[in-house]
Amino acid sequence: MTPVYMDYNATTPVASEVASEMLPYITEYFGNPSSGHIYGAKTKDAVIRGRQQVADLLGCLPKEIVFTSGGSEADNLALKGIVYANKNPNGHIITSQIEHPAILNTCKSLEQQGYQVTYLPVDHTGTINPEDVRKAVTKDTVLITIMHANNEVGTIQSLSQIGEIAREQNICFHTDAAQSVGKIPTRVDELKVDLLTLAGHKFYGPKGIGALYVRSGINIEPLICGASQEGGLRAGTENVAGIVGLGKACQLAVQEMEQRVTEMTELGRLFYQLLAKGIPGVVLNGHPENKLPNTWNISFQGINAAELLAVVPEVAASTGSACHHGSQTLSPVLAAMGIEKERGMSSIRFSLGCETNREQVLHAAEIIIARVKNILGKEG
Amino acid sequence: MTPVYMDYNATTPVASEVASEMLPYITEYFGNPSSGHIYGAKTKDAVIRGRQQVADLLGCLPKEIVFTSGGSEADNLALKGIVYANKNPNGHIITSQIEHPAILNTCKSLEQQGYQVTYLPVDHTGTINPEDVRKAVTKDTVLITIMHANNEVGTIQSLSQIGEIAREQNICFHTDAAQSVGKIPTRVDELKVDLLTLAGHKFYGPKGIGALYVRSGINIEPLICGASQEGGLRAGTENVAGIVGLGKACQLAVQEMEQRVTEMTELGRLFYQLLAKGIPGVVLNGHPENKLPNTWNISFQGINAAELLAVVPEVAASTGSACHHGSQTLSPVLAAMGIEKERGMSSIRFSLGCETNREQVLHAAEIIIARVKNILGKEG
Repeated sequence: MTPVYMDYNATTPVASEVASEMLPYITEYFGNPSSGHIYGAKTKDAVIRGRQQVADLLGCLPKEIVFTSGGSEADNLALKGIVYANKNPNGHIITSQIEHPAILNTCKSLEQQGYQVTYLPVDHTGTINPEDVRKAVTKDTVLITIMHANNEVGTIQSLSQIGEIAREQNICFHTDAAQSVGKIPTRVDELKVDLLTLAGHKFYGPKGIGALYVRSGINIEPLICGASQEGGLRAGTENVAGIVGLGKACQLAVQEMEQRVTEMTELGRLFYQLLAKGIPGVVLNGHPENKLPNTWNISFQGINAAELLAVVPEVAASTGSACHHGSQTLSPVLAAMGIEKERGMSSIRFSLGCETNREQVLHAAEIIIARVKNILGKEG
Repeated sequence: MTPVYMDYNATTPVASEVASEMLPYITEYFGNPSSGHIYGAKTKDAVIRGRQQVADLLGCLPKEIVFTSGGSEADNLALKGIVYANKNPNGHIITSQIEHPAILNTCKSLEQQGYQVTYLPVDHTGTINPEDVRKAVTKDTVLITIMHANNEVGTIQSLSQIGEIAREQNICFHTDAAQSVGKIPTRVDELKVDLLTLAGHKFYGPKGIGALYVRSGINIEPLICGASQEGGLRAGTENVAGIVGLGKACQLAVQEMEQRVTEMTELGRLFYQLLAKGIPGVVLNGHPENKLPNTWNISFQGINAAELLAVVPEVAASTGSACHHGSQTLSPVLAAMGIEKERGMSSIRFSLGCETNREQVLHAAEIIIARVKNILGKEG
């Protein structure tokens, strides 16, 4: 039997409505949108439609959407594009210690080029203090980049407060919203962001497509130079099927947002409560309330998470710790939150999604409780 | 009736075999290849298979393939990645005047950063003299990048001769082979290249996927930083369906290479001969022999190409001239070949492909001849 999938933050299945929209652009309509003939007109129209659908989800203009190959490219475009466009060799970025590697490693690359980066700390819930952002600003600060919701623990940041500070100081504000788009509202004016990253495969769109929202008037350099697609900000023949799929995924997100939030909250709470009731030493990591409704990062204290997952093949989830060649290290996100190593090494991220139902949750909880008792019994 | 498609160099339809392979990775298998559970294992296997298929077409090792979102990204990765890895602020690139915008505009971007670029000329057939490459080498030259076959006229460069020179001088050698892969043999050892760009949608694969071949031992920096996919050279969750499609397209190219070359040569010659016989002043642009068998760039002297295409809606092809807001400028490729403006403005690129057949060729030639006679008759 197929394991219960509880790893939607890693990636989601493509929604059947999304797949249906995409298929004709793989099997039938193939023209290059830049071509002047009818083959190109058909796919050009599809790109225009997709761009509008993404803009509708974010509450922005279609021309403010730059299609990319995914979240990592969008993050790289945002950071390098803004820093390079500023022509300040001492350019300074403010970010946090719990960002995705696409942000952190881009920052490291920029540091090697001589730029400055401040990595803000978080509290034990994984929350950044907006006042810390204000204090970190220097005369050379060209960009603030703070994720919307954390991929491991789901903690949601106070973007609009940070955005206020950025506007006061006239500094560009980017958010990596790859984990929040499609899960919670992400209207750019409410979040007060100038740039926003999203990735199709995190909310029932296809892999290999994403977008960067770039507020009109923001000066940014392309990461991929070449022909004049995407208003000169991203060269390369458009991934038409991917754009069609991303657009449809955005449309579904608009339609289903309320229902998704309600269902994920209910199912997630049920799951956590079952585990907490059935197993001693179960604790939630991340913010208890201000977090993604689908994301439940749970420590099973006294148990190694990797070992637990290994004896629960009926559930597909992921550990908060990265396992490299047998040696296990604590997740940098949990470490930044000040979570002690033993608790961190016992943490599993369960992330729910559209196909998760009550039966799955009950089944998964039951199995996990039984296996944990088994482990504790052996050790005890 | 659907127009006869003669614009395969702009993009190709996805082969039905390619679409069939891709579909399960859109509708069914969705795991993140980095996930440790069974959902990830399935897609990880697909990525491994796709990488092997690409490597088989190029005659290289699978680990030498870096998947990208397409040709433009691969070109940017090659140029910026090599130049930045060299840490020489005076780094020098040798390229040609007839490269694709993804090369030329990346070079321009690097020039703005202080790097040096030499743009070699071509002769009237669009051919670069390898000795010009040798003469352009300086002590700071870090990269030679010369396209394999030109997208507009199809002229094939003597890569192995240039590769010899690059090896003598211990300089990295990249080729943009986006237009040649799948059309003619492109084994990296025969071409003597260290880096090679390919794009799926130019040879019956999907849009949004490509690859850069990077010879083992070459020192290159990533363009997209982040997690450790693609051996640390290209971050981002893998476009699994795209990789599966690209792999299948490469496998088809291996199987059908001989047949494709034979058919394209025969059909293309027939098409050109019909036009040359039926219309006075028809001439071929590009190298008469040493060119892509599918690419026929033809001038209809005394006629404006854009106007001709406008009255031949039954044929989908493209002009050699770029039309911007009503003002027409001569293609930089034809200009670099020393083709006078009137001849250049009368040129149409017909590019044939797998679905082109004898009936289409006869039909297209007949219509074009009739419309040209009509135009010339009115003007005469």
